[in-house]
Amino acid sequence: MELGIAKWEVCLRVIAILFLVSTACLVAFDTQTKVIFLTYSKKATYKDLDALKILVYVTSTAAGYNLLQLCKHTFSALPSISNFKSSYYMYIAWITFLLDQITVYLTFTANSAAFQAAIFALNGSEAFQWMKICNKFTRFCEQIGVAFLCGYIASLLMAVFSTISAYKVLRMYSSKRFMRLKGK
Amino acid sequence: MELGIAKWEVCLRVIAILFLVSTACLVAFDTQTKVIFLTYSKKATYKDLDALKILVYVTSTAAGYNLLQLCKHTFSALPSISNFKSSYYMYIAWITFLLDQITVYLTFTANSAAFQAAIFALNGSEAFQWMKICNKFTRFCEQIGVAFLCGYIASLLMAVFSTISAYKVLRMYSSKRFMRLKGK
Repeated sequence: MELGIAKWEVCLRVIAILFLVSTACLVAFDTQTKVIFLTYSKKATYKDLDALKILVYVTSTAAGYNLLQLCKHTFSALPSISNFKSSYYMYIAWITFLLDQITVYLTFTANSAAFQAAIFALNGSEAFQWMKICNKFTRFCEQIGVAFLCGYIASLLMAVFSTISAYKVLRMYSSKRFMRLKGK
Repeated sequence: MELGIAKWEVCLRVIAILFLVSTACLVAFDTQTKVIFLTYSKKATYKDLDALKILVYVTSTAAGYNLLQLCKHTFSALPSISNFKSSYYMYIAWITFLLDQITVYLTFTANSAAFQAAIFALNGSEAFQWMKICNKFTRFCEQIGVAFLCGYIASLLMAVFSTISAYKVLRMYSSKRFMRLKGK
């Protein structure tokens, strides 16, 4: 059954990596050039908006982190290390749990901040007299929209691992005594 | 020791409620009127920006939810209900854990989205020809800044409870068999 949960985690991490890489690529390689007036044209890229730059960095880092976790899974599958009562296991489990939590929050936040920026680009703001951008760069904006969808799916999957990581570390504690490991 | 953790949780929840209410009030009651030209004046409120409206709703709801959790603590302190092996305890613990997680993510996201909107108001965007707003409504923007700080502190505190809730529910499971409760 332990192998079952490990397999599920590896599976979910691989899918999340694919979605994270998709988000980063969809944003980073999205460009659209539009002729504004006669020979004057304007090129839209993710570099026009800090929120999109941060989204590319955060999703790439999260993908890299999850890849490292996959490597860790390969190593910890060796029988000598996978001794559940060793303190080594507890350290690694705690670090994984904390890093997983931080990664989910960062990905979720970067996605939401960029989403808010995209809402302004889509609708503008009457109160602030900010004009819409997406009516000029429609294809660019649509691609960014798909990237957000991938980013949110990845965030949800990562929220699931972070619960699995929490399960792995916290079930080692006694149900009767506070923060005492079982069998002590 | 169980009482110790319960006391800490109540303490942290009370502090988080104070920060959440502060965020909601600081944003909702923030107004500034500025004379733009002779007799024409403009009033800035949180209603000018959807992200700020959502922040007020989300932080108020999160404060209400945490207040309900405090009430639950008062009831479950009664000896008849606080039987740790009952399935009632497990249901409540799981629901609390899931709701805590959802609340943290929502608060964090609403805060970050509003923060991104505030960055635009502060710096404008050269690429999109969006003008700065905060150079006109400085005091309004400063108050919103303090609200964000409170919102982020509340989010961090709530991330701590959600870990406590996870600890409360997940340590009930066997460390050897998958998703099997201890003592079964």
